[in-house]
Amino acid sequence: MKIEMRPIGLIHSPYSEKEETPIQGAIRPDGEGRVEVFAEYVDGLKDIEGFSHLFLLYAFDRAGAIELVRPTFLDDEPHGLFASRHPARPNGIGLTVVRLMRRDGPVLHVRGIDTLDLTPLLDIKPYIPRFDSFPDAAPGWTEGKAARPKPPGRE
Amino acid sequence: MKIEMRPIGLIHSPYSEKEETPIQGAIRPDGEGRVEVFAEYVDGLKDIEGFSHLFLLYAFDRAGAIELVRPTFLDDEPHGLFASRHPARPNGIGLTVVRLMRRDGPVLHVRGIDTLDLTPLLDIKPYIPRFDSFPDAAPGWTEGKAARPKPPGRE
Repeated sequence: MKIEMRPIGLIHSPYSEKEETPIQGAIRPDGEGRVEVFAEYVDGLKDIEGFSHLFLLYAFDRAGAIELVRPTFLDDEPHGLFASRHPARPNGIGLTVVRLMRRDGPVLHVRGIDTLDLTPLLDIKPYIPRFDSFPDAAPGWTEGKAARPKPPGRE
Repeated sequence: MKIEMRPIGLIHSPYSEKEETPIQGAIRPDGEGRVEVFAEYVDGLKDIEGFSHLFLLYAFDRAGAIELVRPTFLDDEPHGLFASRHPARPNGIGLTVVRLMRRDGPVLHVRGIDTLDLTPLLDIKPYIPRFDSFPDAAPGWTEGKAARPKPPGRE
């Protein structure tokens, strides 16, 4: 079974190199980006302005080779890929929560971006706190791991 | 540009009909499901047991026709597709946060499932509260909309 996807837009970010891209948006919450939705999909943005936070789903189009167990950006110990947010995955879908600052027609101005510039956008979903916010969730191996720049050669 | 995806597993749920499937897992938090990861990907589950909550990304394989603006399960007023979690989307990726109860080898026993039985699994990501939990996020048009059974014929 194959599932075929096509970009619905592009994410514009200040980051053109992997090394300068934050591990997660929450680590650099003021990083500004623009989410451009292609003209044929713009009607689907109706009422999005009411949400302060959005899920962006995008394609990891420049990820390296998949390893099921590997050291991660946050930790030198190896962890399973599905216990990590590493970009090289069997289905390369990235997921980040961004803050919506304003909308200009087909463009959403957001903060907390963590993608490379010109990343293909796959979907936008509203972040609905009663469905999506679990402040007491157990953080597993990430507990106490400080955010850090990506270790050189880590990918 | 086309992006091709293949299931990495299957989600087993008590729901074989759309009408009985909850709108979101958080609405029926005790609904139990099993997430089966295919043998070739099982190594990628290492250390997943430490997380209490997981993002499941899956294919909406039985969704109907895409409409960019439509009434939603939660509201009779029409809203933009990207301001809603409706399953019929240009790239039919579903996203739900589930609670991980235990792991038996390739099978994750979870609660808060909201997918149809035998839904193709695309990815699992750990829910990391410092990256993903925004309890004060503005809920947009969903504010005050009570969970309800899916209106007949709504899809």
